[in-house]
Amino acid sequence: MRGVVMHAPGDVRVEDREDPQIIDPTDAVIQLSATCVCGSDLWPYRGIEPVDHTLMGHEYVGIVEQVGDAVRTVRVGDFVVGSFVISDNTCEICRAGFQSRCVHAQLVGGTIGTQAQKARIPYADGTLVATPGHPDPDLVPSLLAASDVLGTGWFAADAAQAGPGRTVAVVGDGAVGLMAVLAAQQLGAERIIVFSRHEDRQALARSYGATDIVTERGDEGVAAVKELTGGLGAHSVVEAVGTQEAFMQAVGATRGGGHLGYVGVGYEVSIPGMALFSAGIHTLGGPAPVRRYLPDLVQRIWDRTIDPGRVFDLTLPLEQAAEAYEAMDQRRATKVLLTP
Amino acid sequence: MRGVVMHAPGDVRVEDREDPQIIDPTDAVIQLSATCVCGSDLWPYRGIEPVDHTLMGHEYVGIVEQVGDAVRTVRVGDFVVGSFVISDNTCEICRAGFQSRCVHAQLVGGTIGTQAQKARIPYADGTLVATPGHPDPDLVPSLLAASDVLGTGWFAADAAQAGPGRTVAVVGDGAVGLMAVLAAQQLGAERIIVFSRHEDRQALARSYGATDIVTERGDEGVAAVKELTGGLGAHSVVEAVGTQEAFMQAVGATRGGGHLGYVGVGYEVSIPGMALFSAGIHTLGGPAPVRRYLPDLVQRIWDRTIDPGRVFDLTLPLEQAAEAYEAMDQRRATKVLLTP
Repeated sequence: MRGVVMHAPGDVRVEDREDPQIIDPTDAVIQLSATCVCGSDLWPYRGIEPVDHTLMGHEYVGIVEQVGDAVRTVRVGDFVVGSFVISDNTCEICRAGFQSRCVHAQLVGGTIGTQAQKARIPYADGTLVATPGHPDPDLVPSLLAASDVLGTGWFAADAAQAGPGRTVAVVGDGAVGLMAVLAAQQLGAERIIVFSRHEDRQALARSYGATDIVTERGDEGVAAVKELTGGLGAHSVVEAVGTQEAFMQAVGATRGGGHLGYVGVGYEVSIPGMALFSAGIHTLGGPAPVRRYLPDLVQRIWDRTIDPGRVFDLTLPLEQAAEAYEAMDQRRATKVLLTP
Repeated sequence: MRGVVMHAPGDVRVEDREDPQIIDPTDAVIQLSATCVCGSDLWPYRGIEPVDHTLMGHEYVGIVEQVGDAVRTVRVGDFVVGSFVISDNTCEICRAGFQSRCVHAQLVGGTIGTQAQKARIPYADGTLVATPGHPDPDLVPSLLAASDVLGTGWFAADAAQAGPGRTVAVVGDGAVGLMAVLAAQQLGAERIIVFSRHEDRQALARSYGATDIVTERGDEGVAAVKELTGGLGAHSVVEAVGTQEAFMQAVGATRGGGHLGYVGVGYEVSIPGMALFSAGIHTLGGPAPVRRYLPDLVQRIWDRTIDPGRVFDLTLPLEQAAEAYEAMDQRRATKVLLTP
């Protein structure tokens, strides 16, 4: 089969890789219908994270081709959506809703690499969710989004306790930030402020439910949110960028006792303990437990209640993966869907 | 009146200071029955925080001597306990339970300085809580503890979501850590692990409800908690020290999706964003909103359900404040009560 390997920063190649096989009885092998490039794939692409002949890709939807003997909830022929973290969904941590910290957690990116034609998914029952039937083609991008960006944005909004009567501020107008806007709207937030300087993303954010746009950043961005919230700051803040400035902007925009959900932390971020202490806020972040939200998200997409697939603004064949990375790196595209 | 002024690091003096007067109609002037030295008073004492002729002390109980015209809930002659942060208890932030971040918040330490015979307390209704009557003398240390260390330890345990079925780990065996143990026990925690190397504090911790003692620190301390919790880490962790090692030990001891309550952050602490992100935990910290808990804590003390006053292991007259600081600095005392 064909699959993406990043040899070194900036060096993305589509190569012949061995066809995946069932190894453990809890495995499934799926034939991918769609995959994509994640904002986080740009970290190694830009040399910020280590990379060395790495199997890329961790977002995926597809059709189950084979299952191991122990697999119970997904069947050959099912259309499935999977989380970007493998989970058994039965351990104590999973049962508490933190499947991304499962005792059997494994990142799909780097070890499996779903920018490919096929993938072996361990703990298939605990990782994959079957859709009610084979989806109409126009639903595929939205289902693919559920695999990471939607699930991550949703987790961030939930972690920030977006909900009725609350003002939510979203730092980041990338795919995850936009999905957090959508999630905040679905969760019933009263007001949704987005930090954005890009007109096309502002428009998409508004279409997903944003009520206010702030173009300032850093301390000025914080001041703008305070001005919009009677001097108090937002009840709920989502951080979906991953830089030092963005994280501290998110801390500053959160009112005392408010909630910060962060999903974009990069290696450079170092949080002054005293600043976090003085803020007096709740925080929850980390790799999103997408599997917790998947059944609900799949249903909302199936019912056409939400349309997260619009976050993809470019579609390319898998063979042109290098072009997809380049387009995202140069911000010519927000998020690129790849067809295997 | 007499009161404590810290001229410079290590230079604690008891001096004549002007008698406090009502300035605003929401003020009360109280005659202090007891005050004490806080672990945080040792930061300036040791030169870690700036200090320059600073009015010291922020924990206090006493009898109301005068009230302004607008004061409604406390009366002249009442015995009162106050929070170490002034709050109006009516603003939106206060109503959400974060009185330490009140729009009128003011730290008592440094501006009022309750290591003194009297104190003017702004926003008396929002800051002070009257006891049901004048307390028996043996209740005074416990009521004084409610002013900060008990309230702070309680907030930390609550922030860590200590409760039934949960394993709580407490980093720090100082007064606040010990109070967090007491709080965790009262909140119904199933198991309470304390990091401690001091036999007397271990004994006090056990008497307050600790079930396990861990003497290791840092990564070894984390490993010990993991071993006690089936490899997962504690559900709830309290950080009550304020050093880099203690904070990261607390992060490491918290299971994925667990809750960290931190109340002891010092200036040196810098949290690597990626470490916090990877941990995937809830955090809540900052100056404790003691006022939220005060009515409940006063009642539990009044009913003799809890006995936090045992955390004081030395009592000195106010005039010997310098000796009190020295005893705590040299760890000859956990916490010193001063009688004005």
